[in-house]
Amino acid sequence: MINRTMQHLGEERSVIRELFEYGNMRKAVVGEENVFDFSIGNPSVPAPDFVQSEIRRLIDTVPPEKLHGYTSAPGAPEVRKAVSDYIESKFGVPMSEGFIYMTCGAAASLSIAITALCEEGDEFAVIAPFFPEYRVYAEGAGAKVVVVPSAEDFHLDFDALDRAIGGRTKAVILNSPNNPTGAVLSAEELTRLGALLERKSLEKGESIFLLADEPYRELTYGVEVPFPMKYYHDTILCYSFSKSLSLAGERIGYIAVSPFCCHAEDLFAAVCGAGRTLGYVCAPALFQRVCAASLGRSSDVGEYRKNRDLLYKALTEMGYECVPPEGAFYLFVKALGGDAVAFSERAKKYELLLVPSDSFGVKGYVRISYCVARSVIERSLPAFRKLYEEYKGIKN
Amino acid sequence: MINRTMQHLGEERSVIRELFEYGNMRKAVVGEENVFDFSIGNPSVPAPDFVQSEIRRLIDTVPPEKLHGYTSAPGAPEVRKAVSDYIESKFGVPMSEGFIYMTCGAAASLSIAITALCEEGDEFAVIAPFFPEYRVYAEGAGAKVVVVPSAEDFHLDFDALDRAIGGRTKAVILNSPNNPTGAVLSAEELTRLGALLERKSLEKGESIFLLADEPYRELTYGVEVPFPMKYYHDTILCYSFSKSLSLAGERIGYIAVSPFCCHAEDLFAAVCGAGRTLGYVCAPALFQRVCAASLGRSSDVGEYRKNRDLLYKALTEMGYECVPPEGAFYLFVKALGGDAVAFSERAKKYELLLVPSDSFGVKGYVRISYCVARSVIERSLPAFRKLYEEYKGIKN
Repeated sequence: MINRTMQHLGEERSVIRELFEYGNMRKAVVGEENVFDFSIGNPSVPAPDFVQSEIRRLIDTVPPEKLHGYTSAPGAPEVRKAVSDYIESKFGVPMSEGFIYMTCGAAASLSIAITALCEEGDEFAVIAPFFPEYRVYAEGAGAKVVVVPSAEDFHLDFDALDRAIGGRTKAVILNSPNNPTGAVLSAEELTRLGALLERKSLEKGESIFLLADEPYRELTYGVEVPFPMKYYHDTILCYSFSKSLSLAGERIGYIAVSPFCCHAEDLFAAVCGAGRTLGYVCAPALFQRVCAASLGRSSDVGEYRKNRDLLYKALTEMGYECVPPEGAFYLFVKALGGDAVAFSERAKKYELLLVPSDSFGVKGYVRISYCVARSVIERSLPAFRKLYEEYKGIKN
Repeated sequence: MINRTMQHLGEERSVIRELFEYGNMRKAVVGEENVFDFSIGNPSVPAPDFVQSEIRRLIDTVPPEKLHGYTSAPGAPEVRKAVSDYIESKFGVPMSEGFIYMTCGAAASLSIAITALCEEGDEFAVIAPFFPEYRVYAEGAGAKVVVVPSAEDFHLDFDALDRAIGGRTKAVILNSPNNPTGAVLSAEELTRLGALLERKSLEKGESIFLLADEPYRELTYGVEVPFPMKYYHDTILCYSFSKSLSLAGERIGYIAVSPFCCHAEDLFAAVCGAGRTLGYVCAPALFQRVCAASLGRSSDVGEYRKNRDLLYKALTEMGYECVPPEGAFYLFVKALGGDAVAFSERAKKYELLLVPSDSFGVKGYVRISYCVARSVIERSLPAFRKLYEEYKGIKN
């Protein structure tokens, strides 16, 4: 009577959202300060002051019927121009406003790009661990997801990629800096990946695309994030301002199609058609302009770095195992006892909300989102210690 | 290599958007004041002052990381509560915040609701003339659109509905006040429609839903808009603040599922699942709060009424034929010569941008969006006169 797949997706929600809602419920019961909610990637560092003053400036100077009216479907022309110019000057690649499509955030960027590409029988390759909603968008568009394991250090495993990519592969979805591991792919890795995709495209007889999901581009700790379009021509960049400007709830981002994509104009038209089909009329008008004026700025990444350093040091000293993250704001920690779901459940006893890795396509880890107030981390440390001691059978 | 259906949808865009873009191009060539762009429903009356001051108040009082952070997927709890309370008190129907899902505007409301309902082989009945994107959303979800003609006066033709609705009908999409005709359905019509759908649901053996697309609810000229949930239990309201608060570019609206829907909880879960699948993470956070505080307010409808009266009187005096609109901000005028596409093309000679009715599923009319500055209407009248005279072979 209704679509049961949709019902099921709505009921289970994402595991992350489920924990987030559980946390809100627990906060109401035991008090906000007693719940250590590491579930969701909701930026804790405020938007830069510039963002708030730019909102005020726009409200004060632009007539409301212009400011809040429809823009063209791919975005306001001056906004697309600003994004295109920024990409050209920042990354030194040719770009054009005609290949910029403003979106309602990274989720929209991805669902639109996947829908634009997807034909019957297509496969999208994702690299585990991966953001679980990739599967929802790809399967929603009628595609199959092929999971490719990463190497031990969460960087690319080229043998695994070579085996997984074939005649049915439409695109590889790449996420660097990575959610949930914090890994940042190097220029050398992108060079090898570009060569691999070029060879595989030749074998297939048509382009295999690279979907670069980059909401964490600006959140790094001393490493550079190479720009994928420089390493492979058939690249579609899916960007969001959610994390860089701490605007996750405002739903604003963009798709940039590389002008060097095969049939780039057709592909861009398909992006427009997919946006239309999914019900996106235009990206939110006020925040299109706010973000265009804020290009190159970001929230204070130093705050996340302090969180990372504090938590990484404390947890590894306790005995937890974790690869130090190079970017984003997640720690990917080995689950004690090996069973991530059981570990996450047991952590709830201590009001610790940790996302089990199973939904990211790997077993045996939990994701800890450290985009929280410093005090949450500080107060949570005794809970992490008790959890560790419970597992190791240490009696106090 | 890419999805050709999406490419095609992106290339043709909607006829309306196409004309809108053409208008922008012409304005750049001949000057903004010389183009009479009646193509798009972009509100010309500014958002109420309250909206701008509420944005300022929120910016000044709520910490940015809270204000701009993710809300729960169906919306911030206090926003859903405010919308639910408003519906209960305004329309006298039971509602609950658990059945309110905040969306990125009417297009998102519709695409999500259709995706939530749609199963293989489903038909969605639309009443011509109808908003052309209904077809895009329904076909995008895998459904077939069945076009039901309306009566001469653009009200419901119950014989036609009786013939069109059957065992494959999943829902009827209703739009009152209507785009493009301005017709407002009466309580008597909704009573008859409710009875018809009840009988058809019994014959089918499961619910046939009513999707009430109501972005123009507040824009009426002396008539009441009855609330569909009072007339039929299996009703899903698809609302948008785009027109009532002149926020079309901000993409903010909601879905309200009637608590009396068959398996209402399952249906609401399917709405959440569909939103998730289409890439909607949450509705824009700032405007969720702005709209919750603005419930029951609207832009100055009196301005649209003056436009309507001026244009309707002038055009009918010239000799054009048109049913006087009771709501929304469109005149639906008979195309001279009978061929709407040819008429619209010829109108371009006079810089008049009128949307031919073919894309609305009927022939022989043009839609004139009178949500424009009064001066545009005033300056356009000689052009309308010349166009009329050209058709009637009147030489000056």
